[in-house]
Amino acid sequence: MGVEERRQQLIGVALELFSRRSPDEVSIDEIASAAGISRPLVYHYFPGKLSLYEAALKRAAEELAGRFAEPAEGPLGPRLLRVMRRFFDFVDEHGPGFSALMRGGPAVGSSTTNALVDSVRQAAYDQILSHLGVAHAPARLELIVRSWISLAESTALIWLDGRRIPRAELEVQLVQDFAALVVVSATHDAEMADLLRGLVKDEPADGPLAELIGLLVSLAS
Amino acid sequence: MGVEERRQQLIGVALELFSRRSPDEVSIDEIASAAGISRPLVYHYFPGKLSLYEAALKRAAEELAGRFAEPAEGPLGPRLLRVMRRFFDFVDEHGPGFSALMRGGPAVGSSTTNALVDSVRQAAYDQILSHLGVAHAPARLELIVRSWISLAESTALIWLDGRRIPRAELEVQLVQDFAALVVVSATHDAEMADLLRGLVKDEPADGPLAELIGLLVSLAS
Repeated sequence: MGVEERRQQLIGVALELFSRRSPDEVSIDEIASAAGISRPLVYHYFPGKLSLYEAALKRAAEELAGRFAEPAEGPLGPRLLRVMRRFFDFVDEHGPGFSALMRGGPAVGSSTTNALVDSVRQAAYDQILSHLGVAHAPARLELIVRSWISLAESTALIWLDGRRIPRAELEVQLVQDFAALVVVSATHDAEMADLLRGLVKDEPADGPLAELIGLLVSLAS
Repeated sequence: MGVEERRQQLIGVALELFSRRSPDEVSIDEIASAAGISRPLVYHYFPGKLSLYEAALKRAAEELAGRFAEPAEGPLGPRLLRVMRRFFDFVDEHGPGFSALMRGGPAVGSSTTNALVDSVRQAAYDQILSHLGVAHAPARLELIVRSWISLAESTALIWLDGRRIPRAELEVQLVQDFAALVVVSATHDAEMADLLRGLVKDEPADGPLAELIGLLVSLAS
């Protein structure tokens, strides 16, 4: 194998191992053995476990950011729901590694790993704004989108810890949470109320947003 | 001064400095100078900057957890709003240090600091459950309370970055966000719908929750 090919193979093997268990628990010996090469040869390509971990995380970050891409067609609720399904697929596939990364700690809290996590958050943010058709978000919209992204992260982390709620329910719930956060902000700001009216008018009558509003109306009456 | 008294003084001085700037930027020399003692004397009490940072963070964590305490009297919305005000007071007073801590990174990502942050989250969680009158939270309620706590953290962090939205608005918004997340969960689960009905019946007609539901009804019609 060529140098780059061998590096890519090692990254793939490492990502698989770092996904299935906390990175603290994965040794270079184990990665070498899974790749079918010697420990010194691993060090020939990567100076240490951290650099291999960062390379694996970079690949995972690119893969996750890729899953956010969604055609700008049809109502927004179902678009966001499809993205949520792919997000939970990713979380499901990389569970222990995702938890270890997002819960932080010495093994995973380097400035490189933080920058990679932030790059994925930024990709999610950019995608959502583009689906909302907004080029420059006002402060309140930026707050909602960014804080909702952190809500989605913590929801996924809590789901991973025991999987006590069906993930399909949480996927729909997060779409509705996004709408609910926009609604709350709209009680404070006319610009957000306008944005909300624009969002609601294209939603299907049997979509997650209509169901949410129906319940609220029944509660309020 | 006695040993413990001197330690407590140093912790106070360090907390003040770590709050106003990122901990990376605060040197032991500066802490020594602010405390009016020599650098070697600081090392006599604390083996290094990390241990002093952890001691300062421990004090800040206890102080913040103390601000969550709220008498169990009157409707829930106003109770939670008072706690949100004290939370934003804390965030305001410790802005740069709070940001650096919550954004993670090598200087602040030790297992001790992570455990302290988790202890504050747990204190917030316990307080909220006690106000809801729930001893053992079902999975969906636990998810909402814990993910809302992360929403409050990220809202505060985004507010600190430029302070482009009045904090009083965000304090009310977070109370309404909590109610909105319960509402969304209630669309999926009968137990959550029961809990929501219990919450709504005691809310004042001019409270944040009533305002939210009013807007939703006007949108849906």
